[in-house]
Amino acid sequence: MERIPILKLSHFLLVTIQVDLNDQLVGELETNLLHMVRKTNAQGVLIDVSGVDTLDSFMGRVMIGNIGRTCKLLGAETALVGMQSAVAITLVQRGLRLRDVQTALNVEKGLELLKGKIAFE
Amino acid sequence: MERIPILKLSHFLLVTIQVDLNDQLVGELETNLLHMVRKTNAQGVLIDVSGVDTLDSFMGRVMIGNIGRTCKLLGAETALVGMQSAVAITLVQRGLRLRDVQTALNVEKGLELLKGKIAFE
Repeated sequence: MERIPILKLSHFLLVTIQVDLNDQLVGELETNLLHMVRKTNAQGVLIDVSGVDTLDSFMGRVMIGNIGRTCKLLGAETALVGMQSAVAITLVQRGLRLRDVQTALNVEKGLELLKGKIAFE
Repeated sequence: MERIPILKLSHFLLVTIQVDLNDQLVGELETNLLHMVRKTNAQGVLIDVSGVDTLDSFMGRVMIGNIGRTCKLLGAETALVGMQSAVAITLVQRGLRLRDVQTALNVEKGLELLKGKIAFE
């Protein structure tokens, strides 16, 4: 059952991270996500990490960085939502900056953020 | 990272099952889900099983049966969405009936179904 489902919610895609991510899973997720963005003409991608207790450096670097950047190239904004306080602290301590990625407290606020951003542009 | 996140989407709750469920996880999910239904006054619960390749009998019996039934007692409808064909075949072969649970092809159709059902009542 090692596959991360990508759910379509009107013009947005939702991914919830629940499993420990390894290189292969992250790679697959990125590929599948980009495929889905193209297929569904999604305007935004929401990545929910509320189930994630620790964010290792690979996951931080590849997932947050690359996915946000590649989705943007296809015209979709990315929002990282539901981050736990401990993970936020770890990110800051490691000096990781979240470029090309919006953040929000939860899925609902992330959706509002992306809708607002798209309407504004 | 053994915890299944429950996401709130307006009046609905969304759970995506990605990990192999054991007794403890299913029990926790049921408790957390009922707590969230009460806390958020949710009208419906969507359980996405698109990431599930096999549905063992415990998961089928407890999750689909009990969760649907208990949520209904609290006034929330439950929809099981994204079921893979192989899982559907297994359910039928095992003679499992999905009482108190609606089913739909994906999250979007599940949302429509629940909204329609609520509006109709």
